[in-house]
Amino acid sequence: MAGNSFGHIFKLTTFGESHGPAIGGVIDGCPAGLEIDIDFIQDELSKRRPGQSDITTSRNEQDKVEFLSGIFEGKTTGTPIGFIIRNTDTKSSDYDHLKNTFRPSHADYTYEKKYEFRDFRGGGRASARETAARVVGGAIAKLLLKKIGVILVAYVSQIGTIKLNKQYDQINSDKIKESLVKCPDKKTSDKMQALIEEVKKTGDTVGGVVFCQIKNVPAGLGEPVFDKFEAELAKAVMSINAVKGFEIGSGFKAVEMKGSEHNDLFVAEKGIINTITNFSGGVQGGISNGQDIYFRAAFKPVATLMHDQVSVNKTGEKSIIKGKGRHDVCVVPRAVPIVEAMAAMVVVDFYLRTLSSKIG
Amino acid sequence: MAGNSFGHIFKLTTFGESHGPAIGGVIDGCPAGLEIDIDFIQDELSKRRPGQSDITTSRNEQDKVEFLSGIFEGKTTGTPIGFIIRNTDTKSSDYDHLKNTFRPSHADYTYEKKYEFRDFRGGGRASARETAARVVGGAIAKLLLKKIGVILVAYVSQIGTIKLNKQYDQINSDKIKESLVKCPDKKTSDKMQALIEEVKKTGDTVGGVVFCQIKNVPAGLGEPVFDKFEAELAKAVMSINAVKGFEIGSGFKAVEMKGSEHNDLFVAEKGIINTITNFSGGVQGGISNGQDIYFRAAFKPVATLMHDQVSVNKTGEKSIIKGKGRHDVCVVPRAVPIVEAMAAMVVVDFYLRTLSSKIG
Amino acid sequence: MAGNSFGHIFKLTTFGESHGPAIGGVIDGCPAGLEIDIDFIQDELSKRRPGQSDITTSRNEQDKVEFLSGIFEGKTTGTPIGFIIRNTDTKSSDYDHLKNTFRPSHADYTYEKKYEFRDFRGGGRASARETAARVVGGAIAKLLLKKIGVILVAYVSQIGTIKLNKQYDQINSDKIKESLVKCPDKKTSDKMQALIEEVKKTGDTVGGVVFCQIKNVPAGLGEPVFDKFEAELAKAVMSINAVKGFEIGSGFKAVEMKGSEHNDLFVAEKGIINTITNFSGGVQGGISNGQDIYFRAAFKPVATLMHDQVSVNKTGEKSIIKGKGRHDVCVVPRAVPIVEAMAAMVVVDFYLRTLSSKIG
Amino acid sequence: MAGNSFGHIFKLTTFGESHGPAIGGVIDGCPAGLEIDIDFIQDELSKRRPGQSDITTSRNEQDKVEFLSGIFEGKTTGTPIGFIIRNTDTKSSDYDHLKNTFRPSHADYTYEKKYEFRDFRGGGRASARETAARVVGGAIAKLLLKKIGVILVAYVSQIGTIKLNKQYDQINSDKIKESLVKCPDKKTSDKMQALIEEVKKTGDTVGGVVFCQIKNVPAGLGEPVFDKFEAELAKAVMSINAVKGFEIGSGFKAVEMKGSEHNDLFVAEKGIINTITNFSGGVQGGISNGQDIYFRAAFKPVATLMHDQVSVNKTGEKSIIKGKGRHDVCVVPRAVPIVEAMAAMVVVDFYLRTLSSKIG
Repeated sequence: MAGNSFGHIFKLTTFGESHGPAIGGVIDGCPAGLEIDIDFIQDELSKRRPGQSDITTSRNEQDKVEFLSGIFEGKTTGTPIGFIIRNTDTKSSDYDHLKNTFRPSHADYTYEKKYEFRDFRGGGRASARETAARVVGGAIAKLLLKKIGVILVAYVSQIGTIKLNKQYDQINSDKIKESLVKCPDKKTSDKMQALIEEVKKTGDTVGGVVFCQIKNVPAGLGEPVFDKFEAELAKAVMSINAVKGFEIGSGFKAVEMKGSEHNDLFVAEKGIINTITNFSGGVQGGISNGQDIYFRAAFKPVATLMHDQVSVNKTGEKSIIKGKGRHDVCVVPRAVPIVEAMAAMVVVDFYLRTLSSKIG
Repeated sequence: MAGNSFGHIFKLTTFGESHGPAIGGVIDGCPAGLEIDIDFIQDELSKRRPGQSDITTSRNEQDKVEFLSGIFEGKTTGTPIGFIIRNTDTKSSDYDHLKNTFRPSHADYTYEKKYEFRDFRGGGRASARETAARVVGGAIAKLLLKKIGVILVAYVSQIGTIKLNKQYDQINSDKIKESLVKCPDKKTSDKMQALIEEVKKTGDTVGGVVFCQIKNVPAGLGEPVFDKFEAELAKAVMSINAVKGFEIGSGFKAVEMKGSEHNDLFVAEKGIINTITNFSGGVQGGISNGQDIYFRAAFKPVATLMHDQVSVNKTGEKSIIKGKGRHDVCVVPRAVPIVEAMAAMVVVDFYLRTLSSKIG
Repeated sequence: MAGNSFGHIFKLTTFGESHGPAIGGVIDGCPAGLEIDIDFIQDELSKRRPGQSDITTSRNEQDKVEFLSGIFEGKTTGTPIGFIIRNTDTKSSDYDHLKNTFRPSHADYTYEKKYEFRDFRGGGRASARETAARVVGGAIAKLLLKKIGVILVAYVSQIGTIKLNKQYDQINSDKIKESLVKCPDKKTSDKMQALIEEVKKTGDTVGGVVFCQIKNVPAGLGEPVFDKFEAELAKAVMSINAVKGFEIGSGFKAVEMKGSEHNDLFVAEKGIINTITNFSGGVQGGISNGQDIYFRAAFKPVATLMHDQVSVNKTGEKSIIKGKGRHDVCVVPRAVPIVEAMAAMVVVDFYLRTLSSKIG
Repeated sequence: MAGNSFGHIFKLTTFGESHGPAIGGVIDGCPAGLEIDIDFIQDELSKRRPGQSDITTSRNEQDKVEFLSGIFEGKTTGTPIGFIIRNTDTKSSDYDHLKNTFRPSHADYTYEKKYEFRDFRGGGRASARETAARVVGGAIAKLLLKKIGVILVAYVSQIGTIKLNKQYDQINSDKIKESLVKCPDKKTSDKMQALIEEVKKTGDTVGGVVFCQIKNVPAGLGEPVFDKFEAELAKAVMSINAVKGFEIGSGFKAVEMKGSEHNDLFVAEKGIINTITNFSGGVQGGISNGQDIYFRAAFKPVATLMHDQVSVNKTGEKSIIKGKGRHDVCVVPRAVPIVEAMAAMVVVDFYLRTLSSKIG
């Protein structure tokens, strides 16, 4: 009800504030018998962690996860997996000036209206620090996906006006991790990086797009009405801080297409049914059809600037927000593992939900 | 779990197939004491109903709703509101050829994979006929919204390549119902209608965009993490048949903006806090800020064509899908009340959820 | 949230008031491919229906169920199963005197406090008429249980002070339906029937106990912490009108036993593990162990008497409740199919939940 | 779904095994602005903690709770409250002999069947150690109850055959904490203590009853059908380890009563409506009526004996379970705070749910 849980069978509940002692979570509903590769999980966290390079915030968190339950002799036991990540590099005094003042396009004002009392330090619960817990949940989901052969990869396809001009099925996903900005095309990556550095100099910020593709999802996953595959993916992705748009398959481009162009015709070879095109993005009627699932998420520019900004305080008086704290100029590269985590949890959850769809 | 319910406190569960005896639903969690205006609900259904004009499908359903419970002497009692709408104009024989064949970009194939057994008549549960039940739920949600002063309006802002070139705060919402295509600008509406008629002649179909705005939502509604206001809206809208994209506020345009452009600066007049711009679309950190909430939904073109199409059957053999049945060339105008219904239920649900956010 | 749904995967939502046009429900999450025997379902309803014999209320409802969705060519499709049962023999005028007066030990007063507005006719939603919808849900659950070999039987083991003096594994369950009071022992049944007739003459009412046994539940069903098998059973049974107590296995008798008496020792024969005794009642740590599950439910005497009773009205004035309307002297025999229905849904729900407990 | 969460709005999720690094939980949905008295919470834990006296297990855990989130400057912020309790006095080697052998009337066998892989040390997740996390959730619920004036007290009313012969409204609740066995009557308490000591000498164990009363619950809390107040209480209590029975109000005694005896007649004094008797136990139709809510829970004797017991191992061979480890002879006194915790969470959850029952 208070919205800190995600998923139906594979369910992640997260807790924690940016400047509290720790963040963490509980994964309930992970099947027993899954081998847990702690190094893999820690690597996933590293992709998201602050302080990883010059283009990210200088807050330096090792994001070392401690598992407290649900794993025994390296395997899941089917009981809830509790975990915490200590906050170590908090500079809460950076935020004293925000006790009574609302930063523009942050959640300070809306939390004040909802709760009438808030932990203002570093955005508290509204901070994207919370997403580290999602990455842990997603990493475990990915381990399960590996077992069933699903491949899930996300990358940055746009920063500001610089776009990757390649179809998702032409990219080499191994190149993603070589890129500071997580764009698999070297030339585009370099341009994106240059743009971010340029914007940084002006104290401003910039947005971008994360593209995600999921291969080998078995046909038949998803629920047909309110919990359509694309609906749960949309919720998952739109719940990530700073996301303003979501599209699957043809997305907004579908609007200008005719049905005769957009329909994905079936073909069968040796009894295996595929579609010629894939404007549907791998889902029809809310259920996977076995083709690649792919979607895009639009991220707005970071709201914290290194400029002073005019704002108001609790009593409705004018107030100046100083450009302070440690922040990203562009969060999109660090958002890639978060998008992957959310998508992975959606797929796993549908995989488990679908086990009861029919009489065996 | 099987995804036929929507909402947390104000919860709609729907049932019914396109060619079964009836569709219907149960609204659980509607507070007691709400006056129910049956005529209003029936009017909402009329906006969605097939056969309402020359540009919609010729299937003629009166969509007369029968309430079975939860309402006494014209008011809700707080107990579940059960309702049914009989299917009257079904021509199931139109679908006999689909028993073993999969229509392209429909859910025939995916249902087969998920359930291994399906009601193939008219798409069964995958038919947009199900959305009539959503309109009933939405209509009751709207009655509750009226009581708290929220105004929620949707309209068509694009059909194919024809776009409405007006900001949402410049349109006259009274003009929507005068337009067959539900576009509030006469000139644009005429062009859209002409386009639909033209496409109809070719036996093809076309997509579009529905724009929705919500005024007077109190600040402080929404949940901060996974159930952000925009995340629940996205799920609600992406669960509507044929929707491929969702964006709130600046949406995908945010990607190319700088933080200094995108930030919505606060101003206070006489202690009332507003923002100068509204790129956020009325939500920050998942919670409403009191400004207008607005979003766009992209609809793909209808998959059923009046052309023959090549496809495959269950055994993987080539098969021709005849252009048969009664269908819309463009569902977008009829989707307007569905988008409104889903959005209304999201707002009401958050309104009720928020009652427990703080100690009174 | 408003509590009109039961179950997690196999989920029943009910609606309807005693004197509204119909009661009904939606079963969501029933797997596809289950053969539906309508006659069986109607037979289950007959066991609960009013007017079935001289010892039940004279309200005469045929309780004819109409299925509206989710079933196609005699089998479930995996989509929600909507159904209604029309109310036909309502005498609402019998209740006009209750508009402003609260019957003792009924829900009139508590509904008034909770909702401030209520359908007072025949108890409205609080009437046990609602349980007919549970019997439909339970009947479908039973059809699924049959497929997996589970046998579930309930009977009356006590009415007033008259007790059945047989262990559950000594009774002949075929005898249950031969007994008007649903007690499988002829002598005891006769005594119970005589007691009910005697009590009826005095205008009074009497309570009883329903005993339920479930055989062949596979070991390993249930969830270990809050949703223990016995916890969900307890909730299921305590949610039935008039139930005041629940006990599983040894129940309250366990209190006076020593651990050395109460422990169910394991024995293995040819690799098959069983227990010598079964004080646990087939569950350990919230999970089934493959032994018989059995429990008892205590029903209070019906609150409606054929006597006048002193009460109060809305304004706090003294008021006389006339002994009017058509009511059971003892509901316990008619409660047998309701207990079975609730228990069947619990078992099926756990069966489906357990499919995701471990990596396949 | 996997059952490690409890509650609908005020929701506790727990995690942790008996011999893992820590147990803990997350409380989601606690309203903002509640003052948190850490000492009070720690005191509640002390009432449950092992090693508190000679009649409890000698495992010595300080059960020091560390809060990680959701509390700021001594008050709740409305965001999830994460907490952990480290396990410090584990002697896992005591359990090596249980890797392949099933203790009678424990969950070893059922976990094996459900998960096929389990943490066997100290019962793992099935250990009542998990309930410490419930006590934390319950303590916070109690702080909220205090604010609304609800008084909730539990005590031991029976150990083995020794019963407290006083009505709940005659006892002095201040005396409970003075009693090692948590029975408010000195004489009975002494007898109970003597019995436990006597049983301990024989290496055996004994069961008991916990009685719980809740005063000042406002009328109108609860949900009418499946989530009746008594149904949620029953689930809450039956989910506690070792509980075999639950009864509210008259409970099983109701069976032998006539309706004319059992009905709780209303009386009004100065417009305030009460009932003369309270056999209903404070609930009618699933909703509180403002009278005292009271219920009883039956606990079976502890399954771990200091005797050797015959059992079987995984491969179905005979095996001897040695009387080892550190265990309680009678858990009932230590169960008192657990029963209180579960009941407190039920009341708070209904309190918050009821906020949306009617139009304000």
